[in-house]
Amino acid sequence: MDEIIFRSATIDDLSALVTMLADDALGSVRESADDLGPYRAAFAEIDNDPRQELLVAERHGAVVGTAQLSILPGLARKGAVRAQIEAVRVDRPLRGHGLGSQLIEECVRRAREHGCTLVQLTSHASRVDAHRFYDKLGFEASHVGFKLTLADSSNH
Amino acid sequence: MDEIIFRSATIDDLSALVTMLADDALGSVRESADDLGPYRAAFAEIDNDPRQELLVAERHGAVVGTAQLSILPGLARKGAVRAQIEAVRVDRPLRGHGLGSQLIEECVRRAREHGCTLVQLTSHASRVDAHRFYDKLGFEASHVGFKLTLADSSNH
Repeated sequence: MDEIIFRSATIDDLSALVTMLADDALGSVRESADDLGPYRAAFAEIDNDPRQELLVAERHGAVVGTAQLSILPGLARKGAVRAQIEAVRVDRPLRGHGLGSQLIEECVRRAREHGCTLVQLTSHASRVDAHRFYDKLGFEASHVGFKLTLADSSNH
Repeated sequence: MDEIIFRSATIDDLSALVTMLADDALGSVRESADDLGPYRAAFAEIDNDPRQELLVAERHGAVVGTAQLSILPGLARKGAVRAQIEAVRVDRPLRGHGLGSQLIEECVRRAREHGCTLVQLTSHASRVDAHRFYDKLGFEASHVGFKLTLADSSNH
């Protein structure tokens, strides 16, 4: 797929990004584009942190893909800096045409620029197609990913 | 296990922390306490980032456990802030006495303080005992964790 521009997201992309996050089997129950308030606050946090990169793939002026890159310093592996990829989405009509691979490759390129020697991500156990996709890109499914949801203490 | 103090690591803990990272089936081939240089640089990066917390469990004045907490802002899940736990270690003679649970509970407590609504971690597929441990603490093994090691471009 040609004519793809990768760039950092701006606040003007927010509505398109949230719509894309919601247009997904798991995302549809988690997201809501009706109220952008919480997303706006989160965008500001990401935008102000030099270790966070919110990427946008643009085609013909429209947002068609996104991923978030987090740069994680750590002691392990002789002080290796890791890049973590979260919230990967490709616009539904464009899936299966190589844009996802370009997006991940762009993340890996930026990870190298940050001096990272390891790129990591997790994918829900139900996303079997995604697992095949990451395997093809050279990722190794070496870990089990655990999540613990915390009750919203502001309700108590 | 009583008399455990949890606190943020200082540079004086570094040697003990690296020794602990190396004293592990996977860590023994990845770490080297002979040259603390790379670890010192990594410690400074962690210490200067308000979204990173390197925790130490201390007992009778000695470092007996560690974990790193990374606070990750993001758009997904209505702008949920995540806490990620990495590099969990408990001093070998003290394993199996509840210190690990206390350490993770301290991480969860600090995650709440940071306003996180999700705590996540990955564990190597070979660490079957660890998986049982996280399951008991309420974590759900819902994801597959992928890693991609990047060649060290400084060698080219």
